[in-house]
Amino acid sequence: MTQVNDKQTKKIDVQQGIYDENDRLAAQTRAELDQRHVFAINIMGAPGAGKTSVLRRLIAALNDVPVAVIEGDIESDIDTRTLQAEGVNAVQINTGGACHLDAPMIRTRLKDAQLSDHSILFIENIGNLVCPAEFQIGEHIKLLIADATAGSDKPYKYPLAFEKADVIVLNKYDLIPYLDFDSTFFYKGIHALNMKAPVFELSGKTGEGCAPLAAWLRIQRSSHK
Amino acid sequence: MTQVNDKQTKKIDVQQGIYDENDRLAAQTRAELDQRHVFAINIMGAPGAGKTSVLRRLIAALNDVPVAVIEGDIESDIDTRTLQAEGVNAVQINTGGACHLDAPMIRTRLKDAQLSDHSILFIENIGNLVCPAEFQIGEHIKLLIADATAGSDKPYKYPLAFEKADVIVLNKYDLIPYLDFDSTFFYKGIHALNMKAPVFELSGKTGEGCAPLAAWLRIQRSSHK
Repeated sequence: MTQVNDKQTKKIDVQQGIYDENDRLAAQTRAELDQRHVFAINIMGAPGAGKTSVLRRLIAALNDVPVAVIEGDIESDIDTRTLQAEGVNAVQINTGGACHLDAPMIRTRLKDAQLSDHSILFIENIGNLVCPAEFQIGEHIKLLIADATAGSDKPYKYPLAFEKADVIVLNKYDLIPYLDFDSTFFYKGIHALNMKAPVFELSGKTGEGCAPLAAWLRIQRSSHK
Repeated sequence: MTQVNDKQTKKIDVQQGIYDENDRLAAQTRAELDQRHVFAINIMGAPGAGKTSVLRRLIAALNDVPVAVIEGDIESDIDTRTLQAEGVNAVQINTGGACHLDAPMIRTRLKDAQLSDHSILFIENIGNLVCPAEFQIGEHIKLLIADATAGSDKPYKYPLAFEKADVIVLNKYDLIPYLDFDSTFFYKGIHALNMKAPVFELSGKTGEGCAPLAAWLRIQRSSHK
């Protein structure tokens, strides 16, 4: 903000303090989860990328593993109610306007999540390709869900989310025949930012391609213990 | 942020100051545009909703009206280069991380946009359904682009963007046959928030349905003068 420099400087000072405090609380959460051998996955993605659809497929594929879900939304509890109706242990965080989850929000809600030892905790972040990537929330890995219908240029336009991801999903793969999706351009963009995250092409709607991602998550969870 | 109350209070104070300063600068911009009979449209939408595709269709349909574009992106200038290659007068703002455009950014870049009197200024905001809705940037109307592939629950999950919109586009309408899109649920969600904004169903990809939106914008522009 070029014309409000005084306020901007104050804002940056305050924000740095909030980042530091946030990271400290995220580390506390991670340590507590480690003690209980809980593996936490921060699911990030744009609005409508299919975070909940993919999550439901993963929970079905991991049916021998105890699972808990914390659902983040600005308002509404549509996804939490869907999951609960399917017998999933899910709790809601409504941020009431805030564009991302943060470590304090998770700490406040963690006791309500009724975690079992050796479980997987999925935390579905606010639908937003920008802000969630800046905040640790106590997760062990970040799972980024991109979707084919959003176009192949997303790694170039929202680099931080792709850079920070430990694993990337290209969702809505069933719609590829009806789109002008440039796979080469998409993967080139990812590889310029992130050489370590595997990319899984799948469809949360049909379930196709979800099993390999579930298998990969099992391995990450085992190797983390 | 429940456990960082002191910092949170400071953050809110500083943010209110930034909102006020932002609104003051937005009003200045709007007054300057009014003097020159320039009609400014703030285009908002999630990443990959198809903001640029719809914009290109509108520019083609409004081919007798002088047009300028300010393209907002966190990084990259992909869309600006696409528009410039088509002969469109377009300039880029890169926010370098910030999740929305604000009034100071627009004021800084406005002189580079080479506005003609009686033109339309399209400002494409950062792909984000949350933060852009909170900031005026000097626009006369807000055009919200939702897309069918993102699902019919978006008005419930991102209410502020739908509430503040003066006109709403349901893009990617060509893909409806391949989706489980619940139109009744979508419109019910919009009408609970916003009874005044018309909704245009169209496809930025095929161009179908874009002419009625262009005609509506012409009327808004004329009645504004």
